[in-house]
Amino acid sequence: MKTLWQHCHIATMAQGRYSIIEDAAMITAGPLIEWIGPRTELPAGDYAQVHDLQGAWVTPGLIDCHTHTVFGGNRSGEFEQRLQGVSYAEIAARGGGIASTVRATRAATEDELFASAHKRLRSLLRDGVTTVEIKSGYGLDLANERKMLRVARRLGQELPVSVRSTCLAAHALPPEYADRADDYITHICEQMLPALAAEGLVNAVDAFCEYLAFSPEQVERVFVVARQLGLPVKLHAEQLSSLHGSSLAARYQALSADHLEFMTEEDAIAMAASGTVAVLLPGAFYFLRETQLPPMEALRKHGVKIAIASDLNPGTSPALSVRLMLNMACTLFRMTPEEALAGATQHAATALGMGDTHGSLEVGKVADFVAWQIDRPADLAYWLGGELDKRVVRHGVDVTV
Amino acid sequence: MKTLWQHCHIATMAQGRYSIIEDAAMITAGPLIEWIGPRTELPAGDYAQVHDLQGAWVTPGLIDCHTHTVFGGNRSGEFEQRLQGVSYAEIAARGGGIASTVRATRAATEDELFASAHKRLRSLLRDGVTTVEIKSGYGLDLANERKMLRVARRLGQELPVSVRSTCLAAHALPPEYADRADDYITHICEQMLPALAAEGLVNAVDAFCEYLAFSPEQVERVFVVARQLGLPVKLHAEQLSSLHGSSLAARYQALSADHLEFMTEEDAIAMAASGTVAVLLPGAFYFLRETQLPPMEALRKHGVKIAIASDLNPGTSPALSVRLMLNMACTLFRMTPEEALAGATQHAATALGMGDTHGSLEVGKVADFVAWQIDRPADLAYWLGGELDKRVVRHGVDVTV
Ligand SMILES: [Zn+2]
Ligand SMILES: [Zn+2]
Repeated sequence: MKTLWQHCHIATMAQGRYSIIEDAAMITAGPLIEWIGPRTELPAGDYAQVHDLQGAWVTPGLIDCHTHTVFGGNRSGEFEQRLQGVSYAEIAARGGGIASTVRATRAATEDELFASAHKRLRSLLRDGVTTVEIKSGYGLDLANERKMLRVARRLGQELPVSVRSTCLAAHALPPEYADRADDYITHICEQMLPALAAEGLVNAVDAFCEYLAFSPEQVERVFVVARQLGLPVKLHAEQLSSLHGSSLAARYQALSADHLEFMTEEDAIAMAASGTVAVLLPGAFYFLRETQLPPMEALRKHGVKIAIASDLNPGTSPALSVRLMLNMACTLFRMTPEEALAGATQHAATALGMGDTHGSLEVGKVADFVAWQIDRPADLAYWLGGELDKRVVRHGVDVTV
Repeated sequence: MKTLWQHCHIATMAQGRYSIIEDAAMITAGPLIEWIGPRTELPAGDYAQVHDLQGAWVTPGLIDCHTHTVFGGNRSGEFEQRLQGVSYAEIAARGGGIASTVRATRAATEDELFASAHKRLRSLLRDGVTTVEIKSGYGLDLANERKMLRVARRLGQELPVSVRSTCLAAHALPPEYADRADDYITHICEQMLPALAAEGLVNAVDAFCEYLAFSPEQVERVFVVARQLGLPVKLHAEQLSSLHGSSLAARYQALSADHLEFMTEEDAIAMAASGTVAVLLPGAFYFLRETQLPPMEALRKHGVKIAIASDLNPGTSPALSVRLMLNMACTLFRMTPEEALAGATQHAATALGMGDTHGSLEVGKVADFVAWQIDRPADLAYWLGGELDKRVVRHGVDVTV
């Protein structure tokens, strides 16, 4: 059951470069790529289907490797209040901020969470995403973290997207553990992680290492348990200050360290050595009007792989498009369009531990791709918002969202 | 032939405020609004159709009052080169910049221009736009400016959107007039404008007043002719420096002055007195990484009406979404979501001379509206990119794009 795709150019993104094949063809067999190359070298064969891609540029399906897609409520009311002049302190005093999202998430049923996340995820998918990571982290107790992770799994069953779920129980301190952060970490390590892992709900373990969240010591306790459970780790690190969480993550062979505006060159050296991907989140940088740029030169110099993600979340990055993140990576972080696209394909796959099967269009990899009606690959980072005409194929089959 | 729309809340945007009606209903008769108010006050009547809006928030259709939607080629190649380290000077030496768009626009047939603009305009429409302004300005001679304006007209005939066309012949100096700007202005005044106006292709006349484009004196010559032809004027002013183009525009009762980062309080006073709308273009501000903010406090203090537009163009704002511009107006210019939404509805209508018939949902106005599946109106400025579930109605009839 082979399918031929032709009349296209392909940016395969092999090795995290465009790796362009002009006037290309691709043969898929079931969900996998069996052959890819210049059309003139196409092997003779019998095809069940032949698709004319009408001169499109084909790229791997976009991979959003850092999202908080599942949450209750939203924070547009706070967004409006802040712009009306209400201070952060006043909003916090009114019960706003992440605490309001935790309350709304705990109060929502699994079906309600599913319905609201479904709408957001569909928006990401309409823009070319075929793989997405989804974190828990607004439940902050066993039942509610489980609820979030189950919703993440169900999204992957009901929408044409591969979902990786990450347990981010160590996202913030729940109110019932106020002033007892160490006790909450103990609860995560002894109760939550083992239970959720046993239920098969966890692909990776994440934490938020920041002076207003958890210390490196607390994060390390979580990492030790993750290792015992055989789960890879990730870390929110160096977003607002430098605690060297990214070096800690590297010591635990983390898949990724994310945010990283305040990381140092030493952190970059450690990450390069461990193969830990730097996941940059320009939507949060933009939305928070940050000014400290991630150290692009240090990352490039030491060969750290750079991914780009939406960080879709209600408080700091209500971003519904990975393509917009590519533009922000270029405009705000001065990445090239090629680096940005690699960051939402091959390097994003690596940040999810899927680099061998996803993220580039190569023989043996999964046939997740987008055929874009654009003039050149840089168009994906150039246009601001809106929708580009495209055809999305996942596991070798056309999908519509 | 009356239609009832109910089960919704409405932000009517009357007077440029949310002007919310909760649990509202609206009666349309043909293309017009016949009644709008709380559902409990709905007059008895016979309706040919009754629509359940499923709890949506209804707003006026979005109005994009400043675009350069029609152009040949795109400049994603330059965008990429700049991020690879090529200097502006080098790009100009290679024939890049606006000169490349003029060449590509002149080389394109009317059908080619239509096809590429159609894709971009469809993207704007999918995001809730029902009225759009489209400028010429990449033809820079009679035949090619005519070609652009004809494409603008045709877009309005073939897509469900009201198009206002603006002649921006005084956008840049064409190569055949190098070092003869005054002669080109004479050509515009004596040949181009009278001919294009006589052909019914022009709703307004615009110019680019900037040290690297045309002087206030040259602009004024164009304005004098526009007045003689009975056409309202607009002006690109104060984007990169302060030439008091906005005060000049006010003296000619311009519909709008646009960009305005470098305008002064005196300019604001003049604009307020003449009712000239300040059209802010946050996409260009973002894309060019500008740092000089428009003087929001002076504009508010003197009661200048503020509109927001995409400035969709290939060089400085390849923006395909007005909703994204609302977010940028809030995030970058610190406008409130209410101000931003007024800027893409009532005040945008005023900037096009359509304030009496479009831009708000009031009795007697045109029934152009969007029913958004959102929690509150601020959501329109809050979400970053992507697509929101919605139903778009134009002239009282559902449209799909
Ligand atoms: Zn995050
Ligand atoms: Zn413009």
